[in-house]
Amino acid sequence: MAEKSDVRPGELAIELPSACDASVYFIGRIRTPFKSRGECPKNSAEDAIGRIELDPPYAAGLADLGLFSHLWLLYWMDQARRDLILQVPAHLGRPRGTFALRSPVRPNPIALAAVELLGIDGGTLRVRGVDCLDGTPLLDIKPYFASTDCFPEAKRP
Amino acid sequence: MAEKSDVRPGELAIELPSACDASVYFIGRIRTPFKSRGECPKNSAEDAIGRIELDPPYAAGLADLGLFSHLWLLYWMDQARRDLILQVPAHLGRPRGTFALRSPVRPNPIALAAVELLGIDGGTLRVRGVDCLDGTPLLDIKPYFASTDCFPEAKRP
Repeated sequence: MAEKSDVRPGELAIELPSACDASVYFIGRIRTPFKSRGECPKNSAEDAIGRIELDPPYAAGLADLGLFSHLWLLYWMDQARRDLILQVPAHLGRPRGTFALRSPVRPNPIALAAVELLGIDGGTLRVRGVDCLDGTPLLDIKPYFASTDCFPEAKRP
Repeated sequence: MAEKSDVRPGELAIELPSACDASVYFIGRIRTPFKSRGECPKNSAEDAIGRIELDPPYAAGLADLGLFSHLWLLYWMDQARRDLILQVPAHLGRPRGTFALRSPVRPNPIALAAVELLGIDGGTLRVRGVDCLDGTPLLDIKPYFASTDCFPEAKRP
C-alpha cells in the first residue's frame, strides 16, 4: 500500500469520511499469474488466463452462466490507498481526476474487468483477460450484455 | 426491499456470512426520473437522462473526465435483498444463478451501467442512459475504454 509520503507533485489527497456507508462480502478469489503489482498488465486487453475460485456457498449462483461467452468481474483492490482525488499517472506526467482514470487508487477500490469465459467446473471458472494480482478478493460476477455494455464509438483522449 | 417470504418456487436463499470484509463510501447520488422500482427500465439501453451529484470533497476527481464520451457508473442498490443465489426472473420463468443475471439481488448489490456523458458543471454530471431509482447512492465513476470494455461478439442466450 502506498504511504502518505508517496503523493507526487500535483496529486491531491482528501480526508475521507470517518465512517463508511455499506459493506461488502468477499465471495471468492481471483487466481492469476501475477504475484506482484509490477507484474500486472496495465489493462485487461492482455490475454492472461486466470481462475476464479468462488467460496462454496456461492457456487450455486453460477447456474446458466455457461450460456454467456463474456463476463464482468468486480473485485476489491485491497492494496490501494483510497484518498487520492487527483493523480499523476506515469504515462501522463500531469494530474488527472481519479474518476477519469482506471487506477486502483479511488475512494471505493472496486475494479471492473471484462473477461472471456473458458470453462466452469463446480465453483471454479477459467477465464481469459485477467489483469489483477493473484489472490485478489472477488465481489461479483455479471454476464456481459453487448446490447448495453458495448460502445465501439466511445471516445477517449 | 423484498421480504424473506417473497422467495418464489425454484429460488434459493443462502445464509450470508456473519461479518462483511470491507466497506464502501457513498460518494454522491444519481438523480433519475424513476421514483419507484416499477418505473425503472430493465436495462440502460433506454435513453433516460439523469444527473450525477457528487459530494463536494470528490468533485476534484472529475478533472479531465470531459475528455471521454462514455462512463461507467457503479452504484449501490440499497433496496435489494442479498441472499438469493438462484432466482426466477419473470421473463424466464425458471431458476437461473444470480451471477448469470443482472438483477439487483446479489451478495454485493453493486450495479454497473455505461452512460453517455452530456456535460459537467462543477460536481454535477449530466448523462444519458440511467436506469436506476432516483437517489441511488453512487460508488464510483470510471472512464469507458472501448479497447477493453467493448466485446461486440459477446454471446448471450
